[in-house]
Amino acid sequence: MGFPRLGGICTRRMNDLVLPAHRLKAIAVSLLKAAGVPETDAELVADSLVEANLRGVDSHGVLNLGIYVERIRLGLVELHPTFPLLGGGSGTALIDGQNSLGQVAAMRAMELAVTKAREAGMALVGVRNTNHCGMLAYFTSRAVREGMVGFASCNAPVVMAPWGGKERLLGNNPICVAIPAGSQQPIVLDMANSVAAKGKVYAAQSRGERIPEGWALDRNGQPTTDASAALDGGSLLPLGGPKGSGLALVMDVLAGVMTGSGFSREVGSLHRQLTRGMKVGLLMGALNVESLVPLSSFRQLVDSYVQQVKGSQPAPGFARVHLPGELELESRARRSAEGIPIPQKVWEELETTARELGVEL
Amino acid sequence: MGFPRLGGICTRRMNDLVLPAHRLKAIAVSLLKAAGVPETDAELVADSLVEANLRGVDSHGVLNLGIYVERIRLGLVELHPTFPLLGGGSGTALIDGQNSLGQVAAMRAMELAVTKAREAGMALVGVRNTNHCGMLAYFTSRAVREGMVGFASCNAPVVMAPWGGKERLLGNNPICVAIPAGSQQPIVLDMANSVAAKGKVYAAQSRGERIPEGWALDRNGQPTTDASAALDGGSLLPLGGPKGSGLALVMDVLAGVMTGSGFSREVGSLHRQLTRGMKVGLLMGALNVESLVPLSSFRQLVDSYVQQVKGSQPAPGFARVHLPGELELESRARRSAEGIPIPQKVWEELETTARELGVEL
Repeated sequence: MGFPRLGGICTRRMNDLVLPAHRLKAIAVSLLKAAGVPETDAELVADSLVEANLRGVDSHGVLNLGIYVERIRLGLVELHPTFPLLGGGSGTALIDGQNSLGQVAAMRAMELAVTKAREAGMALVGVRNTNHCGMLAYFTSRAVREGMVGFASCNAPVVMAPWGGKERLLGNNPICVAIPAGSQQPIVLDMANSVAAKGKVYAAQSRGERIPEGWALDRNGQPTTDASAALDGGSLLPLGGPKGSGLALVMDVLAGVMTGSGFSREVGSLHRQLTRGMKVGLLMGALNVESLVPLSSFRQLVDSYVQQVKGSQPAPGFARVHLPGELELESRARRSAEGIPIPQKVWEELETTARELGVEL
Repeated sequence: MGFPRLGGICTRRMNDLVLPAHRLKAIAVSLLKAAGVPETDAELVADSLVEANLRGVDSHGVLNLGIYVERIRLGLVELHPTFPLLGGGSGTALIDGQNSLGQVAAMRAMELAVTKAREAGMALVGVRNTNHCGMLAYFTSRAVREGMVGFASCNAPVVMAPWGGKERLLGNNPICVAIPAGSQQPIVLDMANSVAAKGKVYAAQSRGERIPEGWALDRNGQPTTDASAALDGGSLLPLGGPKGSGLALVMDVLAGVMTGSGFSREVGSLHRQLTRGMKVGLLMGALNVESLVPLSSFRQLVDSYVQQVKGSQPAPGFARVHLPGELELESRARRSAEGIPIPQKVWEELETTARELGVEL
């Protein structure tokens, strides 16, 4: 492993390299551009990845750059989408994602939703057939910057059985809602529907540890604490049984079926299906609060709501009570100041990608 | 207890009286009318309650007639609301619920959403300050009948602490999404956000049984299996920890704060706060699928989706895999044919209410 020479900007902490966000973003932009992504789109994708790292959501961060570039190099992604409009009313739209980079389609959809919501009050924009779009909170934050409530969902490769079943038919189709506040940080709920993320099962497997009961079924639909059994043809369990399963299913039908994208087993795996686009479907929504009530009074009320929750008594074992998204925004503040830790393995992958593209890191 | 003379229409099963739906609805209408509810509204509220009973959601059925009538008799409900429009765009509206019966406001809001969605493609209608509105699936079904996706949420009296806290600040604010199919039944997800419904904790308490671990905290924020400790100042635990807590919080902010209704502790208890209206806030949404894609092809795809899930292999311990809302619609078919079982205690309460109103059952 070579150490990057960044004129003292980069440091090491534990086994991680620590990079300032702007430096990490510059690396991501240079790799994406070298792979053929137009500059504006490279900036967008890089920003979304680094924003995920800033928020501590490393699973959606630059960790994915390598596979994004690999998919591009294999010709599996359309880098010059025109996003034709396939349908819509004053408060809806459906655009053809044309197998684009997911972030590019998602931001296009959210910006259209925001524009339409300015007139209609509320707008929902679907995207047909795009790819992995990273952290949904990146797009809902776009609506929040306009003083709107942002909503986002997408479907994803299958990892769960529907409740009561043993066949993997459902992705961990995430849902994100972001609500603007006044002087407080926005409320940002960004959640998937399994009890535990698949990444945690992989992590347990790589450490040779068992996973807790209630996380997964094996390939026969039996509860298992064996991480390998869960991953090898098994499935993750949905949170709250039929509830998490129902949320994932409904989001597959709306983001996938309704948009004319892939759904259920048709959604491709980011890492393991390197023969075609992923056929991911997206839904992006914006609600213009001002169309209903004065935004300034809404902001004040949200502030007082946030303060009430933050000021409430924690349960034993908790230092304090957090709002949805609060820990991520605290991470953002901390990592903006102190830099983003990059595990050695991720850095080595970035180096490999850079070497393949002929880019000097 | 007197037995109703219904000319052989009513029967007894176990300790329950069994009434045909039309008979139960006629009873509900007569009680509501006698309490002063205008005929059209009485029909609507009665229909929503009996529909809940038909679907097996007895907690939202005629069980509530007694307390509805009591609140009306105490002057806590406005029976002649005009639902002034407070704001909105082509795809949004906010109406003043004027402390009306919740079902009346909810149906008005959903019908407005459906009308607006026909033009805009999608519409979201908020209601400020109404009361308990029963089963949300009743209203989303209205959108489904128009070939639209229905969305509904409301806030509710506090029963949960936010994740990590010990103070009850959140209602079990439910979310409902209903999706039209073709020849298959619609998909209807109607869920609250606690691990277990409060009714189940009451049921355990009345049987002198302990509740399972993971359902509740006591008043000190400690996990408890004592139903009374959970109910006496304790709180229900949200499903999936921060996720269920986040969903409940976000719905309180959108349905409660944004609509200018009560929120958090301001939402009144249906049974225990007999001094004022409940200040419930509602959100009703309709998405006109046809604005995005041809409705007929969407219906076909949903049918095949439903068939794939239903036809998938069940896990050990499950006879088959169910779609969200499928069990409720099976109950509806069964109870439509065989009648609705009414527990003796509920029947006695209906008799008491009837006697107070001078109505012959």
